[in-house]
Amino acid sequence: MANEPTDTAEPTEGSPAHDGHDHYWYHGDKAAITRRLKRIEGQIRGIQRMVDDDQYCIDILTQISASTKGLQAVALNLLEGHLAHCVAEAQTSGDPTAAEAKVKEASDAVARLLRT
Amino acid sequence: MANEPTDTAEPTEGSPAHDGHDHYWYHGDKAAITRRLKRIEGQIRGIQRMVDDDQYCIDILTQISASTKGLQAVALNLLEGHLAHCVAEAQTSGDPTAAEAKVKEASDAVARLLRT
Amino acid sequence: MANEPTDTAEPTEGSPAHDGHDHYWYHGDKAAITRRLKRIEGQIRGIQRMVDDDQYCIDILTQISASTKGLQAVALNLLEGHLAHCVAEAQTSGDPTAAEAKVKEASDAVARLLRT
Amino acid sequence: MANEPTDTAEPTEGSPAHDGHDHYWYHGDKAAITRRLKRIEGQIRGIQRMVDDDQYCIDILTQISASTKGLQAVALNLLEGHLAHCVAEAQTSGDPTAAEAKVKEASDAVARLLRT
Repeated sequence: MANEPTDTAEPTEGSPAHDGHDHYWYHGDKAAITRRLKRIEGQIRGIQRMVDDDQYCIDILTQISASTKGLQAVALNLLEGHLAHCVAEAQTSGDPTAAEAKVKEASDAVARLLRT
Repeated sequence: MANEPTDTAEPTEGSPAHDGHDHYWYHGDKAAITRRLKRIEGQIRGIQRMVDDDQYCIDILTQISASTKGLQAVALNLLEGHLAHCVAEAQTSGDPTAAEAKVKEASDAVARLLRT
Repeated sequence: MANEPTDTAEPTEGSPAHDGHDHYWYHGDKAAITRRLKRIEGQIRGIQRMVDDDQYCIDILTQISASTKGLQAVALNLLEGHLAHCVAEAQTSGDPTAAEAKVKEASDAVARLLRT
Repeated sequence: MANEPTDTAEPTEGSPAHDGHDHYWYHGDKAAITRRLKRIEGQIRGIQRMVDDDQYCIDILTQISASTKGLQAVALNLLEGHLAHCVAEAQTSGDPTAAEAKVKEASDAVARLLRT
């Protein structure tokens, strides 16, 4: 899982998309993440066709498990990059409150993933 | 685990795709299931746009959790119908081997859902 | 969701604890289920020792994952038996309301397992 | 979830338990973590009694879900502390390889939790 930092332009402070987050680390991974999401989108459409064609429920459940697994792989990829970049940046910033908030936020995101 | 696509809208009795399964119970729920899957498909496309727009990882993770939850709701809906129809049919058929196989198959499907 | 403890070893037919459920199917599996639960109990105690000995968090997390997996295996075992016995009994009883209630109950139990 | 760093003795370098990890952050939380694990251990013993007393499978499944949820809460607590201390320490150490390894390790631990 390569989360190599991007070498493309750092967005300027105050740009609309920026809002204080350094969330551009995944620029480099964008193509890969998008490819995976496109594949998952295709799987969801495939599941719709299976339902449409009255296919066997267990086979549909198997496909749903596969799509869920795919989504979790994307989530883990994003989480790893987030820890390596956004959380790391907060932790090296010398602002303990910001660092703590980032860790809490990441840990809450993991809690949401676990609860699904 | 045969997930072979069928291009027939309604396999005739005894057609290879039918293979003895009464998996048409969800005919009545089809519209609802399809609507939910369409919404999930839209969410996945939304996630692609979020990645494209360099949105904040944590927000993307939140959307992934929501899509996963949506997929699990569809899975639970299908499972409930499967137990109420396909498994019930096997259990009232008087063929204990068939009934046992159906229960094992449903329980394996739950195991796959849990492991994702 | 009645979890009332019963202190009788074997409730007599019609005793309040029996309440019409044929939940004795796992009598035969009891030794195996109990052995697994004892092993999990031992793992939990092992985790306590790891915390006590200041062991590395990641190693503790690995043990927690193993215990969770163990609990899910017990749950799947119980679920499979429940479908094969209690749900089947309701479905062959000729009482569609009872059968539907059992399926709903089993499916809700799966939902709770998925959400943990 | 208070993961306040401990002010108790930092273990000396080279102590047998140390092995290069700064995993003592949870010293301060130890009492709370241990209390939770003791409660989970009690729940597991309660489940054994439920099986022993032939209680209803669905009620047992409900208890298993509760124990699993308890274990996940402990895991999230440990993970949060781990990110706030061990991972942060690696990230501020100025050794990018060590930092990357810690992030990968944490993210793999989350993957294991998700897969259970």
